[in-house]
Amino acid sequence: MKKINPINYCTFCGAEISIAIPDGDNRERHMCFDCGEIQYQNPKVIAGCLPVWGDKILLCKRAIEPRYGTWTIPAGFMENGETIEQGAARETWEEALAVVTNLELYQIFNVTRMNQIYMLFRATLSDPKGYGVGSESLEVELFDEINIPWEGISFKVIHHTLERFLHERKNNNFTFNIDSID
Amino acid sequence: MKKINPINYCTFCGAEISIAIPDGDNRERHMCFDCGEIQYQNPKVIAGCLPVWGDKILLCKRAIEPRYGTWTIPAGFMENGETIEQGAARETWEEALAVVTNLELYQIFNVTRMNQIYMLFRATLSDPKGYGVGSESLEVELFDEINIPWEGISFKVIHHTLERFLHERKNNNFTFNIDSID
Repeated sequence: MKKINPINYCTFCGAEISIAIPDGDNRERHMCFDCGEIQYQNPKVIAGCLPVWGDKILLCKRAIEPRYGTWTIPAGFMENGETIEQGAARETWEEALAVVTNLELYQIFNVTRMNQIYMLFRATLSDPKGYGVGSESLEVELFDEINIPWEGISFKVIHHTLERFLHERKNNNFTFNIDSID
Repeated sequence: MKKINPINYCTFCGAEISIAIPDGDNRERHMCFDCGEIQYQNPKVIAGCLPVWGDKILLCKRAIEPRYGTWTIPAGFMENGETIEQGAARETWEEALAVVTNLELYQIFNVTRMNQIYMLFRATLSDPKGYGVGSESLEVELFDEINIPWEGISFKVIHHTLERFLHERKNNNFTFNIDSID
C-alpha cells in the first residue's frame, strides 16, 4: 500500500505545520500559525462500475499496487470537476477501455479505516467486444459467474458487491445498499 | 465564500510545488520534484440530515459563512474515520444539538463546480424537544410545511431536497435519488 507521508509544511506559505484545535472547532487539525492556513483531511470517494454484458461481468487484473495481480471491477479515486457517475465511467474507460451505459448506483461502502467511500454502479457494456487492457490493468476479461476468480478478488468491498449482485440477479431484483466495512 | 489558497509548497518536504503530469497519469497535479510527493485534490463529501418529527422538519439558521443567516438542514464536511451516516448524525448534533435515528440515504447531489458531493439522509428526531442552537447556528426550529422560509433557504441542493421530500411525503413513498446541480 502506498505510504502516506506526514504533513510537515504549509501548502500556502511553506512554514512548519502544527497540530492544534482551531478556534470554534472541536478536533485537531494541521494548522499554520504563520499564515492561518488549515489543511483539512477528508474521506475520498472511489467511484466504480460493475460492467455487464448479458450474463457476463467485466473484471480487470490489477497492474498497480495495492493488490497487484488480483482481479477487480474498474474503480478509482474521483477527480475534481466530475460527477460520481462520470468518475465511474472514466475509470472503466481507463482500466478496461470500455464504454458503459445505464449506470445505476448499486452499492456504497464506508471503509472508515482507510478514509474511503466506495460508490459502485451497475452498468451495461456498450459493446461486448469493446474492451481492452488499460494502462493500470494486466488483463481484462468477461467472466461467466462460474469462472469468477473468487480467490483472487482484490478487495473485500468488491467481493461483497459481486456476491450481492449475483445473488440479486437470480431474481432480477436489484436493491441499492449502503454499508460499512473494516 | 471561504477563499481557497493556492498550493505553493510541498506538505512533506517544504520545497516549491510544480504543476505537471506525473508519469503514468493523464492530468496535471501538484507535484514536488524534490521529494516526489504528489498532492492530489479530490471532491469532498458533505453529509447531512433532514430531521423530522411528525409533520415537522428541523431547520437551522446559519451562523457561519457561506450564506450566513439563511436556513438549512444540518450538514457539513465528513471527517476522516467516520461513516457518511455518522457524519450526518454528528453534524445534526453540532448544529442543532439533536439526536437522530432511522437514517435513510435519500438524496445525493453532485456539485461539480464546487467539487462537492452532498449525501443527505432522512432521519427521525429522537425527542421533539431535544434540539437547540449549536455553535454554527443562530436559531434552530421545527417547521410545519406551511411555515418553511422558502425565500431564505441556504443552497439550491437543500431547496430541491426539501421540495422533493414534501412532495413524496404526500404519498408516503420516498425514493432515493442521485442528481447533479451547477
